[in-house]
Amino acid sequence: MAAMASLYLKNPAPLSHSFTKPTKTHFAPPLKLRLRHGPASKTRYPTRISASLINPDGGKLIELFVEKSEKDSKTEKALGLPKIKLSKTDLQWVHVLSEGWASPLKGFMRESEFLQTLHFNSLRLDNGSVVNMSVPIVLAIDDAQKGRVGSSTSVALVDDEDKVVAILSDIEIYKHNKEERIARTWGTTAPGLPYVEEAISCAGNWLIGGDLEVLEPIKYNDGLDHFRLSPAQLRNEFEKRNADAVFAFQLRNPVHNGHALLMTDTRRRLLEMGYKNPVLLLHPLGGYTKADDVPLIWRMRQHEKVLEDGVLDPETTVVSIFPSPMHYAGPTEVQWHAKARINAGANFYIVGRDPAGMSHPLEKRDLYDADHGKKVLSMAPGLERLNILPFKVAAYDLTQSKMAFFDPSRPQDFLFISGTKVSLSNGCFRYFFLSAICHLPHKKSRTQTIN
Amino acid sequence: MAAMASLYLKNPAPLSHSFTKPTKTHFAPPLKLRLRHGPASKTRYPTRISASLINPDGGKLIELFVEKSEKDSKTEKALGLPKIKLSKTDLQWVHVLSEGWASPLKGFMRESEFLQTLHFNSLRLDNGSVVNMSVPIVLAIDDAQKGRVGSSTSVALVDDEDKVVAILSDIEIYKHNKEERIARTWGTTAPGLPYVEEAISCAGNWLIGGDLEVLEPIKYNDGLDHFRLSPAQLRNEFEKRNADAVFAFQLRNPVHNGHALLMTDTRRRLLEMGYKNPVLLLHPLGGYTKADDVPLIWRMRQHEKVLEDGVLDPETTVVSIFPSPMHYAGPTEVQWHAKARINAGANFYIVGRDPAGMSHPLEKRDLYDADHGKKVLSMAPGLERLNILPFKVAAYDLTQSKMAFFDPSRPQDFLFISGTKVSLSNGCFRYFFLSAICHLPHKKSRTQTIN
Repeated sequence: MAAMASLYLKNPAPLSHSFTKPTKTHFAPPLKLRLRHGPASKTRYPTRISASLINPDGGKLIELFVEKSEKDSKTEKALGLPKIKLSKTDLQWVHVLSEGWASPLKGFMRESEFLQTLHFNSLRLDNGSVVNMSVPIVLAIDDAQKGRVGSSTSVALVDDEDKVVAILSDIEIYKHNKEERIARTWGTTAPGLPYVEEAISCAGNWLIGGDLEVLEPIKYNDGLDHFRLSPAQLRNEFEKRNADAVFAFQLRNPVHNGHALLMTDTRRRLLEMGYKNPVLLLHPLGGYTKADDVPLIWRMRQHEKVLEDGVLDPETTVVSIFPSPMHYAGPTEVQWHAKARINAGANFYIVGRDPAGMSHPLEKRDLYDADHGKKVLSMAPGLERLNILPFKVAAYDLTQSKMAFFDPSRPQDFLFISGTKVSLSNGCFRYFFLSAICHLPHKKSRTQTIN
Repeated sequence: MAAMASLYLKNPAPLSHSFTKPTKTHFAPPLKLRLRHGPASKTRYPTRISASLINPDGGKLIELFVEKSEKDSKTEKALGLPKIKLSKTDLQWVHVLSEGWASPLKGFMRESEFLQTLHFNSLRLDNGSVVNMSVPIVLAIDDAQKGRVGSSTSVALVDDEDKVVAILSDIEIYKHNKEERIARTWGTTAPGLPYVEEAISCAGNWLIGGDLEVLEPIKYNDGLDHFRLSPAQLRNEFEKRNADAVFAFQLRNPVHNGHALLMTDTRRRLLEMGYKNPVLLLHPLGGYTKADDVPLIWRMRQHEKVLEDGVLDPETTVVSIFPSPMHYAGPTEVQWHAKARINAGANFYIVGRDPAGMSHPLEKRDLYDADHGKKVLSMAPGLERLNILPFKVAAYDLTQSKMAFFDPSRPQDFLFISGTKVSLSNGCFRYFFLSAICHLPHKKSRTQTIN
């Protein structure tokens, strides 16, 4: 009765696009190299939204940085406000909000947005339109902090060294019902959910929402900031490359030849559909991840290697870091991952088996049905504009000694390898990437397909 | 940022209605009396949808009864199908579905509808429009039943005496993840949720969805069937009475003078707004309720008394039974209660404090924030057409020795009484109704306002 949106393309040919095609220009050199020269901040402020890319949610990309001319006065103002110290994860959310990944959200959620997110995974805008918003982006405070805020209508958000990061204005403080938040976001309240233990269990019993003004772009000084392109910067890059389709692929595990095969094949399919220059956004998640995931620095080195070795074409691949923390909330979270990529200009999203999933913390099973992620994604309010590309299963073909798409007519010829397995055998993933087989033993195995 | 729909009227005057006003005719006699003569079934089949009433969800009221001419052949067919025995609660859901309370749902949910309900509290229809659907209406089967169904595409649903009640066709069997269903519906997985213990914990690990065909209207033979009007019958009744506004009030507790005051005052407000004949749908819930709620038979006797005593005007009040089982799922469930009333022709819905709420099964607090129900209702997808009327708090005014709306300037003059308290002191509710005070002790008290 209720329509389940197709898992296949919603706009199968460029002709059906609503935009006019840009004229072809020469390709820029690989992003990876160019980013090494010149700091990202130089290109951070000017927001040039391409008419040829999918529109951001709400129609306009919302960046929350203060104007450079106002920075000093805002900093001065902030020093006189009650202070709220941000955790490492809070700061990552400030980063996410400041660059417009959650557009049209203008700051940490007030109760109206929090409730709509929990109950409907979407927000109704003033004009009646609906955008997707499946994961609460909230800031928790405890009783003492609430007391310090008192009757103030604004607060200053400071980092662990008490440096002012942002101002939160027109604030609203409301109850933080942790149990309800966890149950509605994860579909379980079992102890042992990584994000819950990292960011919720020990957090305060109040949430503070409001309009966010960030004094300057968030930097981590970990040697990877040049990979952290904002949605505006990514849109500019896709424009420069004259992309007429952008397909996003998120990973929190090491990339391997199975992924490479998929991404190359996806570009081929898009070309066959009539697109002239589909560009891949290879977009590893860079925020909080659980302890047994491969550290970001190792994953990024490996992503660089993918381009250096020419396994993926640098001219049609943009490697960047998605700054969001990871919830491991399966079908709920994959909507956030997809929605954020719309804001960065992607109109195609590759979804794998059991996206953002993990093992049940207590039971010997996956927490989520492996197919629910792509099903929920295809039905999600506010994501109707996005083309969902289901992940084709690849495996190591023993007859060809290389990764190939699984042929069900000769299952005995294929060796299935899980990205999660790789993440659990850190030492070997570089070798794995090169050979697509990892011989080292691993503690946990939850799937037998590449993900 | 995201609009929170007003808690006040969405169409403040009849002029803004989309329908043409019917011409005034004389009032019919009170429904209560007429219903005593002639069985409801006589008026059950013809569905006359008033152009002057709010449209059912999906545009058409979906009744799922087989044509009388086909009843014998369908019964014959059913006898050759695998059988699934319905629990008492399952049968109540068959009743709900068969009469179109859940329109445009055509049977027990398939996985696509189940997932949309859990994640979005709404269903996207084939034409792209959205209707509200917040509570899963599903049928669970166990491994043995699944085995018996085998490769059959249809099954017969039978009652506890093996009498065929309905046929479920074009079936889909999918996993019943109880933990996820409970967490996403109730926002908790704490043991002790009444509906969970009644209908989920012991249910099978599979859900079976499909198109429902009911052989004949569900009857309970409890002396109250004449009160069980279908949405089609209610719409016909509102038509006969020439209602130009229908305001629904659901109760699962005894009605008392505080409620009566509210309902009378609501009609007065609607008249002031320019409606000529607002009709009250006084609509107690008649399906499964927890053990310490007042039994339906007592509540219905009391509702009759309300009309007999003239506390509510029989000419502008329709008393009927809403056949749905009770989830006690607060903000999630109140959406279902409101949506079902749209299908019965109501365009105004009175929402109280903590609707469909209860005490937390383990902690000494209410399970839900008392204000979340009306907030979520005002923001819910698919309910934009419904006018939400927040419950004005009434209390016993010691200075007037009667129920009156609470005056915060003289709190000491008011005695607050909870409908739940009354439900916990069954013996006195009739006296309570007459005097608006109940002196008997009660075991539990979770609120200090009328609800």
